[in-house]
Amino acid sequence: MRHDSMRARNLAVVLGEIRGAGPLTRAALAERTGLTKTTVSKLVSDLLDAGVVAENGAVRGGERGRPGVAVRLSGHRVATLGLEINVDYLAVCVVDLTCSVRLRRTRSAGNRDSRPERILGELRELAESAVSEAEAAGLRITGAALAVPGPVEHGLLRNAPHLGWRDVRVADLLDLPFEVDDFDVDDFEVDNEANLAALGELWFGSGVTDFLYVSGEIGIGAGLVVDGSVFRGTYGLAGELGHVVVEPDGPACRCGGRGCLEVYAGQDALLGEVGSIPDLVARLEAGDRAALAACERAGWALGLALTSAVHLLDPGMIVLGGVFAPLFPWLEGPAGQALSGRLGQMRRTPPRLAVSAIGPDAAILGAAGLVIQRVIADPAGVLGL
Amino acid sequence: MRHDSMRARNLAVVLGEIRGAGPLTRAALAERTGLTKTTVSKLVSDLLDAGVVAENGAVRGGERGRPGVAVRLSGHRVATLGLEINVDYLAVCVVDLTCSVRLRRTRSAGNRDSRPERILGELRELAESAVSEAEAAGLRITGAALAVPGPVEHGLLRNAPHLGWRDVRVADLLDLPFEVDDFDVDDFEVDNEANLAALGELWFGSGVTDFLYVSGEIGIGAGLVVDGSVFRGTYGLAGELGHVVVEPDGPACRCGGRGCLEVYAGQDALLGEVGSIPDLVARLEAGDRAALAACERAGWALGLALTSAVHLLDPGMIVLGGVFAPLFPWLEGPAGQALSGRLGQMRRTPPRLAVSAIGPDAAILGAAGLVIQRVIADPAGVLGL
Repeated sequence: MRHDSMRARNLAVVLGEIRGAGPLTRAALAERTGLTKTTVSKLVSDLLDAGVVAENGAVRGGERGRPGVAVRLSGHRVATLGLEINVDYLAVCVVDLTCSVRLRRTRSAGNRDSRPERILGELRELAESAVSEAEAAGLRITGAALAVPGPVEHGLLRNAPHLGWRDVRVADLLDLPFEVDDFDVDDFEVDNEANLAALGELWFGSGVTDFLYVSGEIGIGAGLVVDGSVFRGTYGLAGELGHVVVEPDGPACRCGGRGCLEVYAGQDALLGEVGSIPDLVARLEAGDRAALAACERAGWALGLALTSAVHLLDPGMIVLGGVFAPLFPWLEGPAGQALSGRLGQMRRTPPRLAVSAIGPDAAILGAAGLVIQRVIADPAGVLGL
Repeated sequence: MRHDSMRARNLAVVLGEIRGAGPLTRAALAERTGLTKTTVSKLVSDLLDAGVVAENGAVRGGERGRPGVAVRLSGHRVATLGLEINVDYLAVCVVDLTCSVRLRRTRSAGNRDSRPERILGELRELAESAVSEAEAAGLRITGAALAVPGPVEHGLLRNAPHLGWRDVRVADLLDLPFEVDDFDVDDFEVDNEANLAALGELWFGSGVTDFLYVSGEIGIGAGLVVDGSVFRGTYGLAGELGHVVVEPDGPACRCGGRGCLEVYAGQDALLGEVGSIPDLVARLEAGDRAALAACERAGWALGLALTSAVHLLDPGMIVLGGVFAPLFPWLEGPAGQALSGRLGQMRRTPPRLAVSAIGPDAAILGAAGLVIQRVIADPAGVLGL
């Protein structure tokens, strides 16, 4: 037992070094970890067998000039699944251990006021075909995480107003297809879309470690990352930017409040009579007055809600994602103006506004990435080594 | 060197056990810490010499029925200083190691649009007389912390709009009087009044470990405590509840914004023509219409700002302190109504509103308590043992 737990910890230490500083020779690994060369060789051999690492092929200079075969993280076997339920689409991706995206599927869906069982059935189909395809390519799916458009407390989706779902135990309803090897339900996590998108931005985006990720969809959420960790609040419900009050007597919101950010800057408010975001962008580029006015208003409301958010959360910078990414050129002006006009005296400069580099895939990438982090942190436990 | 650092760690372990579970016999301490009885006896002897602990006098039953002299935390020697600069008063307190308040002084002051040098000179006088008095009572002041009414970044008070101070290096200007023994400037800390008041509530208040402390003064700030730790954001500027936007086109605020919470619920807005908070309470009790209307409006604005704060910060509960404490009976209704009306569908229940148990002393108590925590965590380092 004691030996097993020490071996598990050493496997994690060696894998962590390979991920952080690899490719590395066995000699370099021994030097960096303080483990004996014999121990390192045994651990590396187990990691090779599990397909977690691979030998570099090319011989490269080892420590002190001696040649050696270097070991690196392998993307050939271990992979994870990222899933997303959103109001108008379902999405899935497969990411391998090197954080390469191996597969990505999106399916348009009319999920408003839907039955959870039906939507989760469709998601299961999508996941099944993704898993089959990944397995055909030699990958082994070791775990999954699911992004949902609403706050999650201990695995329970509290309220997704646009789906019309309340208090849904999503994990129990989604009978995932990859009951292979040692996979069990503990390897499956459900979280708010905005939190997972923030992690996607952290791991697959610009490399910044302090930011507020703002996810513009039918609903609007935010995920605060401070020093590389997501701030979740007391019950895991933090970051509900979409329901920050912009105008106390504004239009009614589906959350039960009034004048929330979402009623000015959610996808429905932005689109109005326009059919889709690409249509809206085309109209904006053509100088359509109604489209420009909608973006101006959304940007103004976004700037006001972000002013309150900056005062309360103190983010390093602000990254706009989801549908806000393609609309950034039209939102940046009014939002930035509200921020700098109101924050100027309290801070030297207001936080910078930037656009997400990874666009609509942020949440599924964050979901898949979350499981990758777990594999790296505990390869013995997650992979049953 | 190695021996010294192990001794320092063991001193902290023993003192932590005595604080957490004392009074304890030396035998019980050895059992709990895994240290030998000889080592424990030596460490306890050093702690006794430094006046950090005392023997219980009364003989009490030791482990396994054997009698023994128990050791407990002592409040007779080691003490810390809590200081506060606010817009209309200066305050100081001395707290001993058992967290008993030994001395408390407040001086009314007209600090609006003042010169930092003058105010800090007055604070120094107040601190000097407190330190003299404490030393005359046999206490030794081992460190101090100062609460200021504005955000602090790396010791720099960024902006205290009501004082009219910007970018003031408070610690450098306050040449504290107690350069005794091993005290140096590193033992002196400056932080936002709201953060320190939140810590005061945590250590001297109701014992709850998850809450948003709302500090109502001339300005309004908030300190979020999650699982016993203050959330500070990226630059230490989080929690500026007073500048959350309540009405985008509301009255101008001293921060440069418009319609901030402070313009509706800050002390100036609450008082109007009334001279003081006790006067206001007397009028409210007598049913004065203007006074009731001012509290109604402040409570409404507070409820709106807290709605946004709950969505973003997800606090366990909300504790109203400062001038909001005596006004709680008149604020609770309208603030609670706004919260439950707007939050009802997103959460099962909105966070509970409660009144601070420690009133206007929260910030100085938190400041003094911060230094007490340091002494307990590292008695060797802080006290030079």
